[in-house]
Amino acid sequence: MRFISRTSSDGVTEQFFTLDEIPGVLWTPEDASGPRPLILLGHGGGQHKAAPNTVTRARRYAAEGFAVVAIDAPNHGDRPKDEEFGRMAAHMRAGMAAGEDPGALVATMHSHLARQAVADWQAVLTAVQSLDQVGAGPVGYCGMSMGCGLGIPLIAAEPRIRAAVLGLLGVHGLTEDAARITVPVQFLVQWDDQMVPRDQSLALFDAFAAPEKTLHANPGKHGDVPSFEVDSALQFFARHLN
Amino acid sequence: MRFISRTSSDGVTEQFFTLDEIPGVLWTPEDASGPRPLILLGHGGGQHKAAPNTVTRARRYAAEGFAVVAIDAPNHGDRPKDEEFGRMAAHMRAGMAAGEDPGALVATMHSHLARQAVADWQAVLTAVQSLDQVGAGPVGYCGMSMGCGLGIPLIAAEPRIRAAVLGLLGVHGLTEDAARITVPVQFLVQWDDQMVPRDQSLALFDAFAAPEKTLHANPGKHGDVPSFEVDSALQFFARHLN
Repeated sequence: MRFISRTSSDGVTEQFFTLDEIPGVLWTPEDASGPRPLILLGHGGGQHKAAPNTVTRARRYAAEGFAVVAIDAPNHGDRPKDEEFGRMAAHMRAGMAAGEDPGALVATMHSHLARQAVADWQAVLTAVQSLDQVGAGPVGYCGMSMGCGLGIPLIAAEPRIRAAVLGLLGVHGLTEDAARITVPVQFLVQWDDQMVPRDQSLALFDAFAAPEKTLHANPGKHGDVPSFEVDSALQFFARHLN
Repeated sequence: MRFISRTSSDGVTEQFFTLDEIPGVLWTPEDASGPRPLILLGHGGGQHKAAPNTVTRARRYAAEGFAVVAIDAPNHGDRPKDEEFGRMAAHMRAGMAAGEDPGALVATMHSHLARQAVADWQAVLTAVQSLDQVGAGPVGYCGMSMGCGLGIPLIAAEPRIRAAVLGLLGVHGLTEDAARITVPVQFLVQWDDQMVPRDQSLALFDAFAAPEKTLHANPGKHGDVPSFEVDSALQFFARHLN
């Protein structure tokens, strides 16, 4: 794990790093020492580890005492794009333009990325937890849309993750992994999501095996999640990780 | 307004009162003085102003600085039961036992009670806001099941109410009043509610005209609302009334 930069403001320290080929950012309370709960932030499709909504959320949670880490997903942000990804992205765009089921198109793309994404997150989790100011405390995962599509196989595979905030995605291709998730889940639905049919969202919520799962639905389109859900997720993580 | 008893414990003062024929309870922070936001708590069918879940919620909110008031709904608690109510309750039970649509049966009962319930709440609201330790601050309403069915006509009629937590009820008989509600609404659905079909719940959520409305769905039956929703409602009221 190689740290590239370190800046502190408003009580939060932000460190860019790379772990092998994985670029990431770690946020911790300024002058933090000793173990604390850790939140993994998975970004959406076409976004990256330091997209504005990710940074806002990360700084909010770090200011409350959490460690937070975000990484670029495979083929996103500062990572190289492989040819297969380029072909799949073009296929996905063409299919959406032609009116094909976006759930199926998006699921194909996510399944192409998921194996690498899970391995990346597991390596980063191990590395970050070896730091003094993070340690082996409880871990949560937060990701919407593609961050949900790559998060579900991760959470299904990774017993260190103890709670998750997910959403903005349908059930396509995820039934089996969702049925292996028994940790508490808070699941967000945009009630007028132009990319995810409502019934496919509700079917994914139904698919989680978690005894404690809670669905939050708000009016608006895919990108219109209200800012109070950032605080609601914080309260959810505080309840399950503290 | 006549106060009957006054006790304080754990930082909260609880006062039983009557206003004309309406029995009620007021909770305030101990030693409160000056105006503060007020929450009206509407109880469920067959319950009363001091049912355990109402008292727990009231004390939680008063401990955070709110004034909280609950009253017995017409024909409930310490209030006399009229003959018409007795006939309707028997009709409702018989219809449910015979497998009739519970949404229609419950709506008939609620519409029988609503006119009186709205008048009661408006009188109590005026009286309580005349007290020094409450004052004319912002007002919220919280009620599930019958507390939702009687709350919707109240909120539609009462401009002093600025935010509401509702739920555990379907759309039957409520479409028009819900369409007149534009204040923020947090709406609870029990995902496996044996008394309220899921599609009728979602239709009621859809019927609110509120630009800010948020749906919280949790697994379990009608009475199984998880306790963290009490805190979530507190955060909702804090956001909109403080």
